[in-house]
Amino acid sequence: MHIGILGAGQLARMMALAGLPMGLEFSFLDPNPDACAGQLGHLVTADWADACALDRLAGCDRITCDFENVPADSLARLAAATEVRPCAAALAAAQDRLEEKRLFTALGMDVPNFAAVDTRPDLLAAIEQIGLPAVLKTRRFGYDGKGQAVLRTQEDLEPAWQRLGGQPLILEALIEFRFEAAITAVRSAQGQLRCYPLSRTVHHQGILQFAQAPAPFDRQHQAESMVRALADHLDYVGCLTLELFVTDQGLLANEFAPRVHNSAHWTIEGAETSQFENHLRALCDWPLGSTTLRGPALMVNWIGQMPEPATFMAIDGLAWHDYAKSARAGRKVGHATLTANHTAELAARCERLTTVLPDQLKTCLASMMASSG
Amino acid sequence: MHIGILGAGQLARMMALAGLPMGLEFSFLDPNPDACAGQLGHLVTADWADACALDRLAGCDRITCDFENVPADSLARLAAATEVRPCAAALAAAQDRLEEKRLFTALGMDVPNFAAVDTRPDLLAAIEQIGLPAVLKTRRFGYDGKGQAVLRTQEDLEPAWQRLGGQPLILEALIEFRFEAAITAVRSAQGQLRCYPLSRTVHHQGILQFAQAPAPFDRQHQAESMVRALADHLDYVGCLTLELFVTDQGLLANEFAPRVHNSAHWTIEGAETSQFENHLRALCDWPLGSTTLRGPALMVNWIGQMPEPATFMAIDGLAWHDYAKSARAGRKVGHATLTANHTAELAARCERLTTVLPDQLKTCLASMMASSG
Repeated sequence: MHIGILGAGQLARMMALAGLPMGLEFSFLDPNPDACAGQLGHLVTADWADACALDRLAGCDRITCDFENVPADSLARLAAATEVRPCAAALAAAQDRLEEKRLFTALGMDVPNFAAVDTRPDLLAAIEQIGLPAVLKTRRFGYDGKGQAVLRTQEDLEPAWQRLGGQPLILEALIEFRFEAAITAVRSAQGQLRCYPLSRTVHHQGILQFAQAPAPFDRQHQAESMVRALADHLDYVGCLTLELFVTDQGLLANEFAPRVHNSAHWTIEGAETSQFENHLRALCDWPLGSTTLRGPALMVNWIGQMPEPATFMAIDGLAWHDYAKSARAGRKVGHATLTANHTAELAARCERLTTVLPDQLKTCLASMMASSG
Repeated sequence: MHIGILGAGQLARMMALAGLPMGLEFSFLDPNPDACAGQLGHLVTADWADACALDRLAGCDRITCDFENVPADSLARLAAATEVRPCAAALAAAQDRLEEKRLFTALGMDVPNFAAVDTRPDLLAAIEQIGLPAVLKTRRFGYDGKGQAVLRTQEDLEPAWQRLGGQPLILEALIEFRFEAAITAVRSAQGQLRCYPLSRTVHHQGILQFAQAPAPFDRQHQAESMVRALADHLDYVGCLTLELFVTDQGLLANEFAPRVHNSAHWTIEGAETSQFENHLRALCDWPLGSTTLRGPALMVNWIGQMPEPATFMAIDGLAWHDYAKSARAGRKVGHATLTANHTAELAARCERLTTVLPDQLKTCLASMMASSG
């Protein structure tokens, strides 16, 4: 079976690393000739909308994506020739923050208060309605905190509007959450759904920094209901992740990713079947694998550049992931996952990890480990 | 770090699949242009003794092998240019069954009675000394039961001699073992050694069919002493496996493999660090990973051709490994590993596996699961 992936970044790379052992082959389409999945299959270097390039990928048995902002026309062209999973409608639902929030609401989920903002008067009306603090976001193409501005006082309006105005925006209430969390599920073409344990996520400067599974609070049942409602509604095939705020009033849906997701990288070592393998199993119409925890896990992202591996590899139970990307500020270049057979062992390993982390991450992990549900 | 591997079969392939996530790159030398590791790095298609090809590989930071019968001259040429691990002497010790048995004896290990056989009179004298039943084996280039003949009565002599005579041979007593077992260890350049749990191995028609870890009998301590003596003597760097007979009189050393080994494929899912990753860690002078069991495991080899995956993937905890090799009788083309969080869960999963295995393997697994130490 030959899988074509739109995008050849680290998510495509980890999909290929999960699929090659199962005998799958991979082709990728990416504008970047150095895209890091390229060494694991055939890389077509072209723009997302390049018809010739898309037609080369259309020979694959299945098509999937490693990011959600693939142009709709490109997906339509591919879908006319072969099976695209998840389908274009599922991707479209995640491409626009306003439509996404409306969908969550229609499905009965609680969400932060929000309002559409296209003009400056819209913005003033939205602030009137939602209050401050709030977050002004582009409706499309945002990720890792990009295309966002936090408005705490009236003075923040003008610089935010100067930076983001002139494109479709959304204003959302800034949530005072107790925790952030994410739930990943995999759904088959026949509608079977399996959920991974909820993970706690911790962001640093807008980028995911740590993910801990299982989450140290029990919201599994409600989170599963939410992701199931979403996946069933979209007739989704593959893995998807729903990001959540845990508040005193319950779970709020923040956003969802129609693909494998950074918050579930821990599943490579921490679950019986990784999210990458399960995404491929769903694509190939193979039985979904067990999403059961093998042991507690903690993932840390390497942002900007890879640290020296030896210090970290000296910690038992630590798995090292280097995406073979060049260093650049704010770029996800790798991650490490600590697993253990039980919680006390993981805590001891986390303590060792804390001693070798860079200072700002040390503080972040220590406060994370100290707080609980 | 760039790793060069002599041989591009499934062992090289699984090394690459373990090393790519850690940011390693791979080149391979193999006479077969379709060798299955080729898709994971740069494949140099040439004979083992091809000086130009060897010199292309010599640019790698480390050289290792996926099989032990690399010509000594080729290793010497590479060792003059870069670091070869394990070293040529360690490979040489495993290339000749007679020298191997003498080494085991010199290190204080019990072995089956053996005698060198170069001529027909040698054979008669050896039978006189060892008795029947016995096994006549070529001293070099045997694997998976190839180059062997079992002698049960005097009538078996002539056909065995016709088939094997004319090259250096060894006659070994045929051991009435209770079990076969294998222990894999990894040793660093600084002499640190970590051992995996002993696994029970079951062969079918001379080829490894099943491996179960941990072994259902307790010989861990003695097995560790034996593999440690061997690894220290050879100043070994990387993974090695010692194959053993478990008899009423204790453990007998059968043979060793100076490389990653089929009997430890279960470590991919069943141990905290796989043998493939640990071999690479030793090569790269990175800290060795934990060899602790994550849960009990059972591996089954697919010989000749791959079965349909879906039936097997429907069993929770089953990992599918397809080496992307073409079908051929007697050829190892893939394997599957069942893991679980505890023994009872593995037993239940094995029962499900038994129902879908081909008939001859069904019988083999059922009798294996029924017998214990």
